[in-house]
Amino acid sequence: MYSFKNDYSEGAHPKILNALIESNLEQEDGYGEDRYTQKTVELLKEKLGRTDVDIHLISGGTQTNLIAISAFLRPHEAAIAASTGHIFTHETGAIEATGHKILSVEVEDGKLTPSHLQGVLDYHTDEHMVKPKLVYISNSTEIGSIYKKDDLKQLSEFCHQNNLILYMDGARLGSALCSDENDLSMEDIPSLVDAFYIGGTKNGALIGEALVICRDSLKDDFRFHMKQKGALLAKGRLLGIQFLELFKDNLFFDLAKNANRMAGMIRDELLKENIKFLTHSPSNQIFPILPNSVISELQENYSFHIWEKVDSNYSAIRIVTSWATKEDVVIAFITDLKKVLSNLVTK
Amino acid sequence: MYSFKNDYSEGAHPKILNALIESNLEQEDGYGEDRYTQKTVELLKEKLGRTDVDIHLISGGTQTNLIAISAFLRPHEAAIAASTGHIFTHETGAIEATGHKILSVEVEDGKLTPSHLQGVLDYHTDEHMVKPKLVYISNSTEIGSIYKKDDLKQLSEFCHQNNLILYMDGARLGSALCSDENDLSMEDIPSLVDAFYIGGTKNGALIGEALVICRDSLKDDFRFHMKQKGALLAKGRLLGIQFLELFKDNLFFDLAKNANRMAGMIRDELLKENIKFLTHSPSNQIFPILPNSVISELQENYSFHIWEKVDSNYSAIRIVTSWATKEDVVIAFITDLKKVLSNLVTK
Amino acid sequence: MYSFKNDYSEGAHPKILNALIESNLEQEDGYGEDRYTQKTVELLKEKLGRTDVDIHLISGGTQTNLIAISAFLRPHEAAIAASTGHIFTHETGAIEATGHKILSVEVEDGKLTPSHLQGVLDYHTDEHMVKPKLVYISNSTEIGSIYKKDDLKQLSEFCHQNNLILYMDGARLGSALCSDENDLSMEDIPSLVDAFYIGGTKNGALIGEALVICRDSLKDDFRFHMKQKGALLAKGRLLGIQFLELFKDNLFFDLAKNANRMAGMIRDELLKENIKFLTHSPSNQIFPILPNSVISELQENYSFHIWEKVDSNYSAIRIVTSWATKEDVVIAFITDLKKVLSNLVTK
Amino acid sequence: MYSFKNDYSEGAHPKILNALIESNLEQEDGYGEDRYTQKTVELLKEKLGRTDVDIHLISGGTQTNLIAISAFLRPHEAAIAASTGHIFTHETGAIEATGHKILSVEVEDGKLTPSHLQGVLDYHTDEHMVKPKLVYISNSTEIGSIYKKDDLKQLSEFCHQNNLILYMDGARLGSALCSDENDLSMEDIPSLVDAFYIGGTKNGALIGEALVICRDSLKDDFRFHMKQKGALLAKGRLLGIQFLELFKDNLFFDLAKNANRMAGMIRDELLKENIKFLTHSPSNQIFPILPNSVISELQENYSFHIWEKVDSNYSAIRIVTSWATKEDVVIAFITDLKKVLSNLVTK
Repeated sequence: MYSFKNDYSEGAHPKILNALIESNLEQEDGYGEDRYTQKTVELLKEKLGRTDVDIHLISGGTQTNLIAISAFLRPHEAAIAASTGHIFTHETGAIEATGHKILSVEVEDGKLTPSHLQGVLDYHTDEHMVKPKLVYISNSTEIGSIYKKDDLKQLSEFCHQNNLILYMDGARLGSALCSDENDLSMEDIPSLVDAFYIGGTKNGALIGEALVICRDSLKDDFRFHMKQKGALLAKGRLLGIQFLELFKDNLFFDLAKNANRMAGMIRDELLKENIKFLTHSPSNQIFPILPNSVISELQENYSFHIWEKVDSNYSAIRIVTSWATKEDVVIAFITDLKKVLSNLVTK
Repeated sequence: MYSFKNDYSEGAHPKILNALIESNLEQEDGYGEDRYTQKTVELLKEKLGRTDVDIHLISGGTQTNLIAISAFLRPHEAAIAASTGHIFTHETGAIEATGHKILSVEVEDGKLTPSHLQGVLDYHTDEHMVKPKLVYISNSTEIGSIYKKDDLKQLSEFCHQNNLILYMDGARLGSALCSDENDLSMEDIPSLVDAFYIGGTKNGALIGEALVICRDSLKDDFRFHMKQKGALLAKGRLLGIQFLELFKDNLFFDLAKNANRMAGMIRDELLKENIKFLTHSPSNQIFPILPNSVISELQENYSFHIWEKVDSNYSAIRIVTSWATKEDVVIAFITDLKKVLSNLVTK
Repeated sequence: MYSFKNDYSEGAHPKILNALIESNLEQEDGYGEDRYTQKTVELLKEKLGRTDVDIHLISGGTQTNLIAISAFLRPHEAAIAASTGHIFTHETGAIEATGHKILSVEVEDGKLTPSHLQGVLDYHTDEHMVKPKLVYISNSTEIGSIYKKDDLKQLSEFCHQNNLILYMDGARLGSALCSDENDLSMEDIPSLVDAFYIGGTKNGALIGEALVICRDSLKDDFRFHMKQKGALLAKGRLLGIQFLELFKDNLFFDLAKNANRMAGMIRDELLKENIKFLTHSPSNQIFPILPNSVISELQENYSFHIWEKVDSNYSAIRIVTSWATKEDVVIAFITDLKKVLSNLVTK
Repeated sequence: MYSFKNDYSEGAHPKILNALIESNLEQEDGYGEDRYTQKTVELLKEKLGRTDVDIHLISGGTQTNLIAISAFLRPHEAAIAASTGHIFTHETGAIEATGHKILSVEVEDGKLTPSHLQGVLDYHTDEHMVKPKLVYISNSTEIGSIYKKDDLKQLSEFCHQNNLILYMDGARLGSALCSDENDLSMEDIPSLVDAFYIGGTKNGALIGEALVICRDSLKDDFRFHMKQKGALLAKGRLLGIQFLELFKDNLFFDLAKNANRMAGMIRDELLKENIKFLTHSPSNQIFPILPNSVISELQENYSFHIWEKVDSNYSAIRIVTSWATKEDVVIAFITDLKKVLSNLVTK
């Protein structure tokens, strides 16, 4: 049984484990004040072309989202998110638990646009309603789509004009930036969003996300918020060492490219078979729509999520590839899938 | 410069890193549903002699404390803690951030007794005050003391009679259980407290604490609380693998014994020199009171926390040893310390 | 300028003011422990035919909702509400501020049904999402519709079977119970819902809502929650005296009947003029759809909310009548409205 | 039985009730947008000599404290209060329920000084502890003492220098300002504190406190916070009308003077009898220390709180007088008290 269920099924890239081993017995200060974390922060600033951002390493995505959003907002302010946004449904009310409403917007492709935001602003007019203040986007999105540079520019301008904070969840930022359709660079991001995170967990690290705070007014006292929410790891080195390894030689991008290439191989073959997809996804998550009988047969040897029933005979499944997905497995999967499909035709 | 600042200066015990490497490319389910976490949970239940407890693995102590306490209490209920208790001052208001007051009690030795609790109950009499409901203790305490079996029994009975929840922070439980003065066993604990955690981070793991919920009424839906607070790691295996390694062959206890033995060597030598201590500490943290000039000289080669000014000439320092502290370093430290002390005499 | 903007434009019914004056210099205990509040609670229990409910008087609706819901839910549990539900959009995130998500459901007529609830339950399957636990309904609803006895029975059964708490916001319960279409009695309610409140503010009191807790498991320590949220008024008598006056001689129902009758007069005349309504409303709020030019002319002498644009020429307005609305004003309004409408025709 | 238990035993001053009656059937906008509230706000600004403050009317003290403090602080920031401060113990954790720790300081006389604050700041040095940010004081204090102008000036300067917010709970501000020992004027206050409230409930109103926000940076969006916490009363006129009546002809000060004079009469007579007091109190709460047998006899005809056991034979009681306390009752009480005391001597 091979799993395409997600991009965190394996441990970490071996180079990362090696780095942990090599540094293991060095004594370091705790709580993110170790030399590795400090080096990583400097390195990331360099990669982003910005010395004036603040960077914090945090264990996971939900934790990063809840700390950032609750630190950035005052009690009456709310976040706007696509209804598909991870914080809206899939984080057990983590944001609401910090006291903030999420205003959701129905979207087609997982992406928010200025017109969505305008609609929310138009509706929220007085103190009997929350004040929309932060815009949450994910790149790549939860359904595999990506924000192109111009998409982000338009959002950024709208947010700037309307005094909104633009926050980007980058759990799968590597995959987004390495997509064939992407025209956005790491260096572009800090001038377009107010804060974002670079996801490590889903791109080869054991744990870890790097939160980058670009807007000055959001920076103060951020470590207090981290500690208060249980996010200052005693052995913060665990995060620092991993991110250093990911970024010192472009490992981060190499891993994301592998994930995308593996997804692309499957996508291309399915397109040849005239299989339709639920969404346009140029990243490492794809959502082919398959006959239920095909899905059942595939499940004998492969595991994956059934994403959505499309009609009584067809469902969309989610195939996720990762830094660890190997070409021979993908080829075998394609072969198996074609076989099942051809059996279907002949039946 | 050698650091006695804390017991989380190094990475993890090599066996733990090896276990991570060996399992690295196996595919596992996420969020604590991996086979390693499941095995660990079974193993820990066995070690505790109880199949009816619930066990959850969580990254760190502050996070464990805040999730457990906020899950266990209703909004108007409060925790009682010694004023030295970690949650009271050293977790950035993490418990209050979840909405709960901490009622602090001044204690001499870091330990709560039934009479402390009775005082709090007597004072809180109606709905204009919070309702004391959970008793937070640490074992070993923040100042190195330990709860003996009879201490815990008395607290346990009092809590039972007064419908209080007894919760034990075991960040340094290993050191407590392996102390020369300890008469408490792992198997004793579940019948004495309602919930507690077994600390991994400060006893050889990279990260990780194992929360054990003993009282049935506190168990329901606990994973919801973990997810809501950002504590369900995508790669939960990272916690499972480490705890499995710690407990499958008593590594957990071996490491704690080393920490205690190293502290004991220093303590014994200092006692011979007639050095006084701030607290009676039979665990891996000791607090000798030294002349300020001695402290300054020591700081040239060793780092540690200055804990408290005792008078204008003397201060208490905190020396923490760990699983990673080596005997030769301790011998060198003792030698250096004696030299500084003897210079002092001859001056 | 006469206002049909809401049912809280005037002060209190004169009998209520008289009661305040008569009792004014009597000394009473504070915080709801006065004799008036105690008498009121007994009287309300009698009217409800239930001695086993708990009753608490609270200043206003938002406060009642937020205290009740946050007292009833554990941190990971969520409320389900119609998207038109007052708590969802019109209370500035009061529920979320206590840490709980509201799961909204799009409805046609302001009312939730078991099938709406089933949909929410089906979607929320694991600990990565909040746990739906409390069902919030309003009677009458925010758009004037009412729950009939059978509606409530079905909801009640569904909630019972699915371990959900059914909570009814009765800000306008008087109007609902006195509607021509109503078949529900005060005595019916406690066996159908787990908690509800009887609205005073919108039915002739200066301030005040009476929260009735029917389910035993929700009763404990409720006054702690009230105090914590600032709802135990030092002069709780202010609430007790008013509710006593409202219920000792059926004033509550007389006032609601007046409100309904006034709305009914307007509705009937508009129906004769073939005016359409946005919703079917048999209570004291009606939502006629009028040409924009008619609305403008009416606004010269009457104030009311423009509820919704229907198309480029028509909008729905909200007309609210109350205990204080006088028949002559209503007749004048009808006359004026007819005049404006007939001018429209002749133009 | 006559009650000296508190200053909210009676209803409202008759002039206030009259004002409610006179305005009763006027139609007003809801939620504090009525003309009475607006007039009151203008009048209060005039009395304070400041047009640049923001003023909001709120039902009660706990609610005012919790809204103000939670609106003013960011999540990691804490309030400093005397251990006798009302928010610390007597508001059921209302501040902690909004997520903020209260750092308490033991004080002798209910009053904070710069040296108390310096101690708190010295202790809280890094992100592992909360950040002290707001200083909560009460004037008059919970034990009857008052802040003189110079006390406040010193606090104010300290807070300014250390970037702390100075917030004054004025539940009994009238009594403080009308004390014989007072040298502070209403006009002085806005330049000395960042926010404060003028208490109505304990000085002749049915309900109501007027929060005055002086520091610009604390003003934004305050009505959102009020609504979110359930404090925007639909019939906000109830608060506006009362405060207008209290301040249009100095009724507020006349009532406070009566309260103080009545307390003063009792105090003076007790001093003549060589009775000691627990605290120096020049306001409307006094704390005489009496033999327990005397207290028991008094309790046959008078009710009051027993504040504190002083030793096995003596206790301090709390006598509170108010706007409604009549001279003849006070004279009778003094006579009775003297009789009991003289019996004691002769026994």
